[in-house]
Amino acid sequence: MTVNYIPPETIAPVAGVKLAAVAAHIKYADRLDLVLFELVSGSTTAAVFTQNQFCAAPVQIAKAHLSKTMPRYLVVNTGYANAGTGEQGLQAAQQVCVGVAEQFGVNVEQVLPFSTGVIGEHLPVQKVLAGLPSAVLAADQWRAAATGIMTTDTVPKLTSKQVVIDGQTVTIAGMCKGAGMIKPNMATMLGFAATDAAVDHARLQRLLSQATETSFNAITVDSDTSTNDALTLTATGQSGVTITDKNEAEFAAALQTLMLELAHSIVRDAEGATKFVEVCVTEAADCAEAKQVAYTVAHSPLVKTALFASDPNWGRILAAVGRAGVHDLAVDQVRLWLDDVLIAEQGAVAASYNEVAGQAAMDQTEIKITIALGRGDAARSVWTCDFSHDYVTINAEYRT
Amino acid sequence: MTVNYIPPETIAPVAGVKLAAVAAHIKYADRLDLVLFELVSGSTTAAVFTQNQFCAAPVQIAKAHLSKTMPRYLVVNTGYANAGTGEQGLQAAQQVCVGVAEQFGVNVEQVLPFSTGVIGEHLPVQKVLAGLPSAVLAADQWRAAATGIMTTDTVPKLTSKQVVIDGQTVTIAGMCKGAGMIKPNMATMLGFAATDAAVDHARLQRLLSQATETSFNAITVDSDTSTNDALTLTATGQSGVTITDKNEAEFAAALQTLMLELAHSIVRDAEGATKFVEVCVTEAADCAEAKQVAYTVAHSPLVKTALFASDPNWGRILAAVGRAGVHDLAVDQVRLWLDDVLIAEQGAVAASYNEVAGQAAMDQTEIKITIALGRGDAARSVWTCDFSHDYVTINAEYRT
Repeated sequence: MTVNYIPPETIAPVAGVKLAAVAAHIKYADRLDLVLFELVSGSTTAAVFTQNQFCAAPVQIAKAHLSKTMPRYLVVNTGYANAGTGEQGLQAAQQVCVGVAEQFGVNVEQVLPFSTGVIGEHLPVQKVLAGLPSAVLAADQWRAAATGIMTTDTVPKLTSKQVVIDGQTVTIAGMCKGAGMIKPNMATMLGFAATDAAVDHARLQRLLSQATETSFNAITVDSDTSTNDALTLTATGQSGVTITDKNEAEFAAALQTLMLELAHSIVRDAEGATKFVEVCVTEAADCAEAKQVAYTVAHSPLVKTALFASDPNWGRILAAVGRAGVHDLAVDQVRLWLDDVLIAEQGAVAASYNEVAGQAAMDQTEIKITIALGRGDAARSVWTCDFSHDYVTINAEYRT
Repeated sequence: MTVNYIPPETIAPVAGVKLAAVAAHIKYADRLDLVLFELVSGSTTAAVFTQNQFCAAPVQIAKAHLSKTMPRYLVVNTGYANAGTGEQGLQAAQQVCVGVAEQFGVNVEQVLPFSTGVIGEHLPVQKVLAGLPSAVLAADQWRAAATGIMTTDTVPKLTSKQVVIDGQTVTIAGMCKGAGMIKPNMATMLGFAATDAAVDHARLQRLLSQATETSFNAITVDSDTSTNDALTLTATGQSGVTITDKNEAEFAAALQTLMLELAHSIVRDAEGATKFVEVCVTEAADCAEAKQVAYTVAHSPLVKTALFASDPNWGRILAAVGRAGVHDLAVDQVRLWLDDVLIAEQGAVAASYNEVAGQAAMDQTEIKITIALGRGDAARSVWTCDFSHDYVTINAEYRT
């Protein structure tokens, strides 16, 4: 059950990108669990990775390969995160890259590996290698590939955008997965995007990092940052449009829209989620402060259980704002809204507030909490979900 | 249901302290909800308060009164936190102090008010004032008073320690309450302690702050810091023993033992808790780093749900360590134990580990997680509980 997210049956493919999803029986029978991306020669690829110090073996290998050359293949397995697996894990990730490189006649550094699943158990390399020959690459396999990277996700997550730049249509498409261990600190568990525009590598990396900051790096399910977070963006150049300083803004806007939609789809399909919640902090001294306050509210188990109960228990929101580390906060300047309903001002309940209006706002499936700090002009939003019985059930039973 | 905490029927009273608990019908019928402490003239009282910026009206009044003179009376109500109540809340807390001062013929500044309960609703002052005359103060009412300050607590929490100093017996007794919104940042929701030793105010404050750092400020249930946290320690001097530089160590040790036992009782009675868990970080560069890592693990919803499920899913612990903000962490130096079972070293599962031993450790009701960072000599422990269905139930239904 998602909160108002229905995956599209098909999306616009990106010229220069082919995909395949295989049921390789890596951990479970009868599910797609191995995905390949083929990127046309001449493509540029940018990437952002987890900042968790225990970053997974495939993340380490992918970073190393990406520092040497542009990739031609991305290979993704589910079932095992290949994190907390030490030297043996690095060898396993490298063996998978060798398998792909040999199959398609490229250098091993032209292959980037990605894994997602349980941490600390060893990747069954032979099963991955045995599955590779079954891969049938095609441009229209985005939905199958998005299905093949799912773990506790209940639906595949993918979208595409088309924008006319310099009189020509440019396509950007992307997919992602993740439903728990979600407080991305670079990207979500796994995300892959591509465009048929031509974008030089430095510009592509900058655009990806910028868009990440206000999309994947502005969502949280449970405050836990994954060891395997990775997000890539490939530019194939097949549309004939080259992104330059002059037309970059249009491309960046389309990219931002796509990234935000993908990031939101993760929150909408979060483990146990019944509500989709935006926490918008305005009038902050700077963006970092706004984000810090928004995340503190979005991580509060008490706020999240009140959201689950549709209880307009705004005192919990104020308490979270008060412990968010803004040491010179003037609490009588803080104002709080649930959607358009002003709840609190001057350190107390607003004179205009009545519980019926607050309850009506809280009863909605999608809620916007706005917190004005009265300190400046900066604003940031963070998106999250509620905290339900199902979150506990899903995470208590994950390995059984 | 607590995790191995049974409150004592009686504790050693403290000469110079009398208590009373009254059923004032402040929010609910038929429960003790108003508590008075009478402190003998000449007592010194130290206190620590929440660092939440939205600190409650009674906290603001108590701080102001304490800065002027030593208190003779403490007055505590449950049902309403009197936080997020603005100017009206300050007046309400002051009115309660005036009521107590008039009843006992002291100055209003000699009364400190404390409140706990729902945030954002106004305190029914008249009910509190109407309840005061029923208070019958006596030295043996510690358990009744500890019962009178309970909210979602399932048991009263109190203890006493006796220590021989300079050939004479010194008693220290204390009580506390709190089961949710617990990540004290000065104290827990409410705690009150007293000794019959004579301790000058500056020394008493220092001893209280020191003991707080490794007791109440080292526990967490849900990472939410209350608006009403307050902890006081009164020294009545009635034992005839004066604490000086020479005998301070003995007193401090007894105080630390008492404070830790009270802090642990909060975790053992935490909302929904089924396990009592120590997260001990050793070999840290400094104490702040050790505490930061320990709290990150103790706050992780994924670690806490794995604890609930008795699942030795140690990858989640490593992932939390990896996102704890130690930027130059050498992950191959980190070692992880569940009780005495070495689980992980050199970035992967330990060669000696087997899941049977890990499962046996996890199946216990009390678990110690030890994380050695390999960076230095500092160590800190934080105590927490697991995250269960009942936590969600209790906090989703708190106001209904």
